Amino acid sequence: MTDKFMQAAIEEARRGLAEGGIPIGSVLVIDGRIVARGHNRRVQNGSAILHAEMDCLENAGRLKASDYQRAVMYSTLSCCDMCSGAALLYKIPKIVIGENQTFQGPEDYMRSRGVKLEIQENAECIELMRAFIAAQPALWDEDIGED
Amino acid sequence: MTDKFMQAAIEEARRGLAEGGIPIGSVLVIDGRIVARGHNRRVQNGSAILHAEMDCLENAGRLKASDYQRAVMYSTLSCCDMCSGAALLYKIPKIVIGENQTFQGPEDYMRSRGVKLEIQENAECIELMRAFIAAQPALWDEDIGED
Repeated sequence: MTDKFMQAAIEEARRGLAEGGIPIGSVLVIDGRIVARGHNRRVQNGSAILHAEMDCLENAGRLKASDYQRAVMYSTLSCCDMCSGAALLYKIPKIVIGENQTFQGPEDYMRSRGVKLEIQENAECIELMRAFIAAQPALWDEDIGED
Repeated sequence: MTDKFMQAAIEEARRGLAEGGIPIGSVLVIDGRIVARGHNRRVQNGSAILHAEMDCLENAGRLKASDYQRAVMYSTLSCCDMCSGAALLYKIPKIVIGENQTFQGPEDYMRSRGVKLEIQENAECIELMRAFIAAQPALWDEDIGED
């Protein structure tokens, strides 16, 4: 069963897809409560930096260091170098990842920096990305800096 | 003598300072030409993600992978985990850093990932940050995720 926070991240991913965007979603949870939601906005905003996790962190606004340090970041997809780096900057201690089958970020490096990763291999997350990558391979390559 | 690209990054940093912001600036150079400029917008936009380098990448818009892969990113200050991660995502091969005396990001890790770093220890960059950190220590701590 999908936990309620990952379910909220998947809802964000589906919202992005409905907007014509890349279906990746994220939520930030502090003390058991969702404080911000976000989804990839490359297409919608013409953005090079608004991956789902970045959009979520931006939507959370300026939090205190102590808030980030007890947060859990949820993402439907394994976090890329940029989004992983954002989590490191703010010392977010735990990231829950929907799946890492269609893309895998620097997971070993994150663990070496002390970040706890929980990888759920959620079938709905995998299917969302598989279908998207098959439909829009060039857009997907752009999003992860590939040719 | 400060090279013209670092000078442009310093101008961005000073623009940010004049706006009441954190004085860090960045430019992106491709084929010897500045294609985008940016500066830290934490204060101005209430942003948690618009460090100078991120603002610059966002201002550059959606570039091709092959554009990033021959770009040089200039920043007045050593790049934090987030901005370093953004450079890794897009495979930017070289970063020119104004100084790493007042803050140092994951420079060894960047080198281990194949990114060439040039650290200039520019006196103007150092003085901008020293004065700012002395004047606004809490704001600076917030920007780098410290208590």
